[in-house]
Amino acid sequence: MNDPGDRTVAVTALKRAVPYIRLFKHKTFVIKAGGAVFAEPETMRALVEQVGILHQVGIRTVVVHGGGPQSTELAKALGLETQFVDGRRVTDDRALDVSAMVLNGMINTRLLAACRDLEVPAVGVSGIDAGLIRARRRPPVKTGERTVDYGHVGDIVSVDPSVLQKHLDAGLLPIVSPLSCDERGNLLNINADTVAAALAARLNAEKLILITGTPGILEDESDPASLVSYTDLSGLQRLRQQGCLAAGMLPKADAIAEALTGGVQRVHLISYKVPDSLLLEVFTNEGAGTLVVRDIAALSPAEQQGSE
Amino acid sequence: MNDPGDRTVAVTALKRAVPYIRLFKHKTFVIKAGGAVFAEPETMRALVEQVGILHQVGIRTVVVHGGGPQSTELAKALGLETQFVDGRRVTDDRALDVSAMVLNGMINTRLLAACRDLEVPAVGVSGIDAGLIRARRRPPVKTGERTVDYGHVGDIVSVDPSVLQKHLDAGLLPIVSPLSCDERGNLLNINADTVAAALAARLNAEKLILITGTPGILEDESDPASLVSYTDLSGLQRLRQQGCLAAGMLPKADAIAEALTGGVQRVHLISYKVPDSLLLEVFTNEGAGTLVVRDIAALSPAEQQGSE
Amino acid sequence: MNDPGDRTVAVTALKRAVPYIRLFKHKTFVIKAGGAVFAEPETMRALVEQVGILHQVGIRTVVVHGGGPQSTELAKALGLETQFVDGRRVTDDRALDVSAMVLNGMINTRLLAACRDLEVPAVGVSGIDAGLIRARRRPPVKTGERTVDYGHVGDIVSVDPSVLQKHLDAGLLPIVSPLSCDERGNLLNINADTVAAALAARLNAEKLILITGTPGILEDESDPASLVSYTDLSGLQRLRQQGCLAAGMLPKADAIAEALTGGVQRVHLISYKVPDSLLLEVFTNEGAGTLVVRDIAALSPAEQQGSE
Amino acid sequence: MNDPGDRTVAVTALKRAVPYIRLFKHKTFVIKAGGAVFAEPETMRALVEQVGILHQVGIRTVVVHGGGPQSTELAKALGLETQFVDGRRVTDDRALDVSAMVLNGMINTRLLAACRDLEVPAVGVSGIDAGLIRARRRPPVKTGERTVDYGHVGDIVSVDPSVLQKHLDAGLLPIVSPLSCDERGNLLNINADTVAAALAARLNAEKLILITGTPGILEDESDPASLVSYTDLSGLQRLRQQGCLAAGMLPKADAIAEALTGGVQRVHLISYKVPDSLLLEVFTNEGAGTLVVRDIAALSPAEQQGSE
Amino acid sequence: MNDPGDRTVAVTALKRAVPYIRLFKHKTFVIKAGGAVFAEPETMRALVEQVGILHQVGIRTVVVHGGGPQSTELAKALGLETQFVDGRRVTDDRALDVSAMVLNGMINTRLLAACRDLEVPAVGVSGIDAGLIRARRRPPVKTGERTVDYGHVGDIVSVDPSVLQKHLDAGLLPIVSPLSCDERGNLLNINADTVAAALAARLNAEKLILITGTPGILEDESDPASLVSYTDLSGLQRLRQQGCLAAGMLPKADAIAEALTGGVQRVHLISYKVPDSLLLEVFTNEGAGTLVVRDIAALSPAEQQGSE
Amino acid sequence: MNDPGDRTVAVTALKRAVPYIRLFKHKTFVIKAGGAVFAEPETMRALVEQVGILHQVGIRTVVVHGGGPQSTELAKALGLETQFVDGRRVTDDRALDVSAMVLNGMINTRLLAACRDLEVPAVGVSGIDAGLIRARRRPPVKTGERTVDYGHVGDIVSVDPSVLQKHLDAGLLPIVSPLSCDERGNLLNINADTVAAALAARLNAEKLILITGTPGILEDESDPASLVSYTDLSGLQRLRQQGCLAAGMLPKADAIAEALTGGVQRVHLISYKVPDSLLLEVFTNEGAGTLVVRDIAALSPAEQQGSE
Repeated sequence: MNDPGDRTVAVTALKRAVPYIRLFKHKTFVIKAGGAVFAEPETMRALVEQVGILHQVGIRTVVVHGGGPQSTELAKALGLETQFVDGRRVTDDRALDVSAMVLNGMINTRLLAACRDLEVPAVGVSGIDAGLIRARRRPPVKTGERTVDYGHVGDIVSVDPSVLQKHLDAGLLPIVSPLSCDERGNLLNINADTVAAALAARLNAEKLILITGTPGILEDESDPASLVSYTDLSGLQRLRQQGCLAAGMLPKADAIAEALTGGVQRVHLISYKVPDSLLLEVFTNEGAGTLVVRDIAALSPAEQQGSE
Repeated sequence: MNDPGDRTVAVTALKRAVPYIRLFKHKTFVIKAGGAVFAEPETMRALVEQVGILHQVGIRTVVVHGGGPQSTELAKALGLETQFVDGRRVTDDRALDVSAMVLNGMINTRLLAACRDLEVPAVGVSGIDAGLIRARRRPPVKTGERTVDYGHVGDIVSVDPSVLQKHLDAGLLPIVSPLSCDERGNLLNINADTVAAALAARLNAEKLILITGTPGILEDESDPASLVSYTDLSGLQRLRQQGCLAAGMLPKADAIAEALTGGVQRVHLISYKVPDSLLLEVFTNEGAGTLVVRDIAALSPAEQQGSE
Repeated sequence: MNDPGDRTVAVTALKRAVPYIRLFKHKTFVIKAGGAVFAEPETMRALVEQVGILHQVGIRTVVVHGGGPQSTELAKALGLETQFVDGRRVTDDRALDVSAMVLNGMINTRLLAACRDLEVPAVGVSGIDAGLIRARRRPPVKTGERTVDYGHVGDIVSVDPSVLQKHLDAGLLPIVSPLSCDERGNLLNINADTVAAALAARLNAEKLILITGTPGILEDESDPASLVSYTDLSGLQRLRQQGCLAAGMLPKADAIAEALTGGVQRVHLISYKVPDSLLLEVFTNEGAGTLVVRDIAALSPAEQQGSE
Repeated sequence: MNDPGDRTVAVTALKRAVPYIRLFKHKTFVIKAGGAVFAEPETMRALVEQVGILHQVGIRTVVVHGGGPQSTELAKALGLETQFVDGRRVTDDRALDVSAMVLNGMINTRLLAACRDLEVPAVGVSGIDAGLIRARRRPPVKTGERTVDYGHVGDIVSVDPSVLQKHLDAGLLPIVSPLSCDERGNLLNINADTVAAALAARLNAEKLILITGTPGILEDESDPASLVSYTDLSGLQRLRQQGCLAAGMLPKADAIAEALTGGVQRVHLISYKVPDSLLLEVFTNEGAGTLVVRDIAALSPAEQQGSE
Repeated sequence: MNDPGDRTVAVTALKRAVPYIRLFKHKTFVIKAGGAVFAEPETMRALVEQVGILHQVGIRTVVVHGGGPQSTELAKALGLETQFVDGRRVTDDRALDVSAMVLNGMINTRLLAACRDLEVPAVGVSGIDAGLIRARRRPPVKTGERTVDYGHVGDIVSVDPSVLQKHLDAGLLPIVSPLSCDERGNLLNINADTVAAALAARLNAEKLILITGTPGILEDESDPASLVSYTDLSGLQRLRQQGCLAAGMLPKADAIAEALTGGVQRVHLISYKVPDSLLLEVFTNEGAGTLVVRDIAALSPAEQQGSE
Repeated sequence: MNDPGDRTVAVTALKRAVPYIRLFKHKTFVIKAGGAVFAEPETMRALVEQVGILHQVGIRTVVVHGGGPQSTELAKALGLETQFVDGRRVTDDRALDVSAMVLNGMINTRLLAACRDLEVPAVGVSGIDAGLIRARRRPPVKTGERTVDYGHVGDIVSVDPSVLQKHLDAGLLPIVSPLSCDERGNLLNINADTVAAALAARLNAEKLILITGTPGILEDESDPASLVSYTDLSGLQRLRQQGCLAAGMLPKADAIAEALTGGVQRVHLISYKVPDSLLLEVFTNEGAGTLVVRDIAALSPAEQQGSE
């Protein structure tokens, strides 16, 4: 940055960021990043760099990660066959071991190591720690004539966020693995979006930001230009009824609804493929991806403007 | 316990335990359990039950675990060959992945799940969290004519125990994986005894308790009757010079020396094969296994008596 | 405890006690011991040993003591005649001096000395300290044609438990003398059961435990086999109406009702003559004596079971 | 105070007192009052009124009381004969009971009751509470050919003032009985001046004020005009050598020396027979009685002037 | 004070003041002093001496000052002409500069300097500091046919007393200048009585004391004997309707009403010309000047008596 | 910032600023701005905007201001003649009034108002508040044959920074006027650079930044190209001896030396005429103006590099 013009730009940019810093300081953001973000060291590092900046400017930041592709890969390496019933994955005993090793041992560990490298003071947590998540095994589902047991898959019973709050109060950034368990200590797989939404609600988060490989919610999955940039719960419901939501988007839509109903102000869907998408979303006037609020009509005109 | 005699025994036992509770309340114990302890669910559960009691009566308890046998097993399942140079294991990239998955993803996770089952409020931590352990890669070792690089193996540079202390202050029991990293976020394997000794020293622990499959230090490895029940640093040095210390005991002897020099009062070696050995050690007048202090001669007669 | 069998029993007993420790840790118990408990140094010492164990394992323990027999004895030694009107004791000026000397100067002092001996960190308090109890003199009672003034006898107006809470927070065990006074500093005698019940209610105590010389509430005072082991407020009322409650039990029944109505969960009556009765009551599955709850029917089946 | 002149005087007086309030606010005063002060309700009440004012204006005030005359009286009422050996009182078992009842049960209790009446938030404490005073029995003294055991009489081993400090921090005024005990819980009589001096030293008191029935230290016990108004440790030593100190003054002189050596700034001896002597001493320019400092020569001229 | 009689008077006076100290300790008083009080160094010093005593005995004291006469004087020295419209002052740009310099730079500064001299630990604050007062410019007023803009004059929108409370908690006495501003940082003049009343209400003050040059509210402005010594809100309204309130008293009457409606217990009007009037008001049985309460009829007889 | 290129620049700039945020977070900066900075609303506003950003990103920022030109101007408006003796200004009584009004009433007030506008939570403080600065009047100086009294000019005796620390802890930015006083409350003028240096030393500030109208220290006052960009105490001494320091720079050189000797790490001199000079200094790799450290030779190479 030796060029004086460069330096001026830098300082001007800082001045533009300050109103956002003031706005979000001491607020809580829950960032959920899917396993695809961790497929390459570069994309993982880019995520850590960005959440580190949020943390540095005083935003209470919690990261929740997935690990689907990595689990599939490890299962294959171990010669395990993933069982499917009616197209849905069944988590048997060995698949559960794989999940635990991937989520708590590989992804969470690598994220913490990247945080160390980038001087972000982070700490790893999973749903099992200190009663963070209390879950119960999902009962077998009756579909048509058959009863299907999807295995070690759980539903959240309650969340005790005190361990996260203590870390945040101590200036640490929690990196959360969604692995959870029931009261008898049986491990349970829970969808990472669901975990992130539940944590965001209990932490009264200002924002829940879901980072995936798609640019946001698309009206037509095959057409990036059909991006829905701003909607609310009833809009989401409409899209679902119109069949616009892709299969993978359905559980996300449920998580979004849960977060917003639980008190989170805004849910964002952005793509990790857009460079600096997280910082652009937070620190500039125009967001990227899709923004979902509870009820657009209930917002004041000023808030509506701020949302765009 | 319907038999009145039984109930009287129970209460008498409680009264006998109280002086030990008073003695150790608010003191810190670091318990290190080797991977063999986790080979069977029963022995892992027995450990958790016992550390849960220490925690419950007010002892600030930290557990450090290993995971050697499990790493070997997973490597085999993945078809990896463990490299050896001059008989010592080399941690290459894939072996490091295995370590991370086993230590942080399998053993630590299972221990936390067992804690949930037994209502012990525990939290998982590894050397990577919040700067707990700062390590550096061990430089290649010159042996004879060759220079051997043992791979991703680290030496501790510094310990920042504040994350552990915050958990202990919050009434949580930390379960520590020894996996660590350097300042650039490169993961490093460190011997779990070494990690436990370093933590014990920095936490000013009253006791470091090493739980293994042997009854303690034996003068003759093949003769359980040759157990050394009480010794000190110079005694340990003498045993080493006499060639009495088995190969596996040598790094333990180094860890013991480091803990005692660092200020830990007593180091115990006990076997997980003796039922309730940890509770017997802490709450009854006669310990089991081997007790090592810094300098027997420097103890007052009363302290010497208390040590026996 | 050199016998290995002995040691195993001790550790097994400890493990059995731990669920109770977990259950009652940080909860408040108010223990009231009548003057008879202090008639012999051995029984007083046995009480202190037991309350010291409750304190040691983390139960917030408050002891309230009486001193009736000792007052009678001192009055006799001083050549005072105790006045009775219609069979009830009248506290005249000199009798009040005797009460003060016995309660605050003899019993409380001896209890504190025994605590010092047994390393229980205790502190003496009376109803006069720091506004703990604000009382007023009981107005003369009209009985038939006469109006009888029972002298310096008080009724509790209000309780300010902050001095007790500060002591408990500081890790001290308060030993409370029931001697109280009115706003003008006139000393007043108040029944120790009444004081204990009022403190238990204001401290939101988990348990109020009344220790006397009888095994509990008896349906037939002369038949120990008629012990009522479990009842509630309406059961107590029934017993009273059936004339089953002995004269000395009537004020106790009032105190029990006041405690339960005031929010105390359980009131126990046990005998100091049963060795370790307090510990047996708290740390084993089967209590001794009588347990009174507010309303048996309102308890869940699990709670009812726990009560037996 | 209807007369306007009166009101002006009152306000003028308040203004004169304010520099002293500023000077002594948050400082600690230990006031020791001998048993004679409590012989009449009026003199006790006058003391409480004055210490209440010290407390009210923000001085951390601790009161230590004696109880000699009252003990003699109670012993007589109980038909006990006080034993003397070579003119010194022997505290046998029954005399010890009498001390406990008088100090902890009568004087302390009455003082607290008077505090309640005058709205002074006070709390009773004795040397036995919470390890305040740790003492040991004074060994038998060899005098000439005989060895005399003075019975249950103690010497202070150590003082733990934390219970007093917590009360002072909570805005409470501690009323301290000098009764103490050894580590085995054996009660011990200790001279109240000695206790007051030890507490003053450990609390870093600004002033130790000894209230007796004499106007201060007299060079000639029979001549009030021989009052020593200002002296220091060497002056005290000189008076002792000249035989000017009356028998009762000798232990006081020892206590004064201990307090000054232990860091107390000033020790005052004043008489309770002078109305408002305590307030006059603290809030006006000229004290009454005797003031003793460590070393007059070491004071600055300003300090010397302030002392007169 | 060498005369023993004098000393006795002093101590007696102190004893009479103590009940008031007990009554008002930890309570909040807001004292408003008009600019006339600062016209002479002696009257300013007398005020500081008196508020220093309130502060010293533990009353949480806040001083609000005016500065009217001094502003007029400075404007004249600068050759500015004060504009009047229909007899009301208009605050133009230069008049605002004068206000700022007089209020924040002259009066506030001199008061702090006098506090330093009298060892009163004070701190200067104005309505602009830390959001203490948020105001808005008073809109132009339509009077008859003309619309008059009184210039930089403000109305209070909200009060954030946290900066005052932090100072009070730290043992500091805040000296408040009424200068305020709007959200855009435009300075605004606000009547000091109005500011004092708003602060008193938000601080839940026990008393608001308005110090002026008149003895209180007079039924007949020209007759000091017509002083209203005790009234309430409806009495004040009656006086206003009867035209008894002088022009200068009208805004004071509004401020009094706002304070009482906002929860302040008592508002006093006293004259700085009566020596020690503030201390006489607070520490003696009979106040001076006028006392206004919300509703005399709603007070208990005891409170009514206390008011006289 | 609608142009995507713009947005990328903004985010890139933010990423570049983060290492500096991390470096300086929770550190203390003292910024001194001379009166010239406040001559125009634009330059004052630019200063407030920049210190607001420092504050916002977590730097504990203290601003000290001067007011020389404004004082000269007000004096002129009031028709006062500034006295000079041997070319040095004499602060007589009226000049002191002018200083107080300008510093505390005009500059400090306007700065706070600008902070309100820019949403910077600031609070005004002067050397008189709460004992912040204790000064004494500078004694008359003997120059040649005459003794000259420069009037109400002070030297700092001691600094009590607790009022600043409480504000900083509460998240407030203190704006400090250098006006001070002695123990008798006599106001005293002290050079603002001297005050800033003393505060920086007592606050253990990381940086003292002096903002003036010149680009830094010039070897030749008339040649901006002769800027000294990096020096230390001995370099400063050399420049002084070579006569390179302009008259106005001499007291600054003293203040710089005092700050560095007192423990401040770095002193910067920058010009308010360079846009965003403060932000450029703090958040970019190359500073502007002059940097002075204690001893260049004592810095590690890395630190030296960082300094350039």
